[in-house]
Amino acid sequence: MNPMKGKLYGVSIGPGDPGMITRRAWELLQSGAHWTYPVKSEKSDSFVLDIVRRSELPLPENHTALIFPMTHDKEKLARYWLRAAEAVIEIVQQREDVLFLVEGDASSYSTFGHLARTITALDSEIEIVTIAGVSSFNLAAANLKMSLAETDDALAIIPASYGVKMFDRLLTEFDTLVLLKVNPILDQLLDLLEEHKLLAESAFIERAGTPEERTVHDLARLRGEKVGYLSLLIVRNHHRVRGPRIRGCRKATIQHS
Amino acid sequence: MNPMKGKLYGVSIGPGDPGMITRRAWELLQSGAHWTYPVKSEKSDSFVLDIVRRSELPLPENHTALIFPMTHDKEKLARYWLRAAEAVIEIVQQREDVLFLVEGDASSYSTFGHLARTITALDSEIEIVTIAGVSSFNLAAANLKMSLAETDDALAIIPASYGVKMFDRLLTEFDTLVLLKVNPILDQLLDLLEEHKLLAESAFIERAGTPEERTVHDLARLRGEKVGYLSLLIVRNHHRVRGPRIRGCRKATIQHS
Repeated sequence: MNPMKGKLYGVSIGPGDPGMITRRAWELLQSGAHWTYPVKSEKSDSFVLDIVRRSELPLPENHTALIFPMTHDKEKLARYWLRAAEAVIEIVQQREDVLFLVEGDASSYSTFGHLARTITALDSEIEIVTIAGVSSFNLAAANLKMSLAETDDALAIIPASYGVKMFDRLLTEFDTLVLLKVNPILDQLLDLLEEHKLLAESAFIERAGTPEERTVHDLARLRGEKVGYLSLLIVRNHHRVRGPRIRGCRKATIQHS
Repeated sequence: MNPMKGKLYGVSIGPGDPGMITRRAWELLQSGAHWTYPVKSEKSDSFVLDIVRRSELPLPENHTALIFPMTHDKEKLARYWLRAAEAVIEIVQQREDVLFLVEGDASSYSTFGHLARTITALDSEIEIVTIAGVSSFNLAAANLKMSLAETDDALAIIPASYGVKMFDRLLTEFDTLVLLKVNPILDQLLDLLEEHKLLAESAFIERAGTPEERTVHDLARLRGEKVGYLSLLIVRNHHRVRGPRIRGCRKATIQHS
């Protein structure tokens, strides 16, 4: 790549708990690089910046908020991605490294992919590095004291927007379902879990890792409630009857200690 | 819980790169707690300990290898889990905190769940805390420069032991498939991906994060090869036609910047 330009790092900050920041991210945050981070509008706070603030690391002198508005309007979104990409390119052209701070993991449900593609389309010489991180569902499982997957388990992570019919089908294939952004169909999901006798095997978490984290194991309590955007359900599907598996693979699985 | 006893921490160390250790895990590693870690036999090395060694942190004076043998024999496994649980209980009874080091994330395909359940069955007063971490598939996506999931994507993580028929079905439901432990059916999987014109959208990684990491984007090169145990395929299923989604959820998804 071009040594006359800085690099762009997509830096995963983890889902909310500053203790979930990795050593590599922590090192980059203190490297003197220019911090960038998403905000919904000029006046709004940045959720990811708030995580870093709670780590007590000071905001560096060089930092820029990038606006990613709340909208379904694809043209409007593309315009803002372009503007964000141009802002990043301007900084790397001054040989500064840029960090784009991402809540959770940069490869999982983040805007970093869009930003990186837009930048590459404008200037393919800019080197882009992704620093992996802890996903919200990893922290959710730990804090709910549940397993996401054991030995041969199949795990599905799905936005609840697909509706309850899909989950019904997936219950035959998966040992664990992680349902993201459950608010709009929470009561329907609770009905489905009750019908399948899975309420006791499931748990809910909101704002995992933040000071406002809330965990609920007795899911019946959630009926009729409006829950926040950063909420998810983990469903452990203990009743599932598994099909045959290939012996060579099972062997290999058990070897994993 | 009991203040006369130490606590047990399941400490996720990440998938292989010591830079992926979280700040919380790093702090615990240096807290003076007793380290425990899995080995396959008395004479074998510990993969997870090797990750920590590469971080240049010295092994503390108090450390114990716990044997988890490679076997399908459930009785034999249960006997070793019991022995490991008893070893941990003996230490916490001396008011020492115990760390059980786990490669990857402690809630994802790890033996920590078994160990924790066995300990709780023997002594329900022992406090057990899980420290979440970076999963192999998060690091794989970052190092392969792929997205695991964007906006409304559905993501499945499945051991390849379920065979190719299952993947065939899941291609209609999922935008990304992460196939774990692919060695025994790698050629069949490559055939399937070719048939669905997904070879170009897929990539392979072996020993993610370790000095021996290997990434392969041109999957045809893997035909006929024997690959290692710690290997996975990420399949991005760009051809998928999505069913309808619920508007309220989609809105919420887009708000997430």
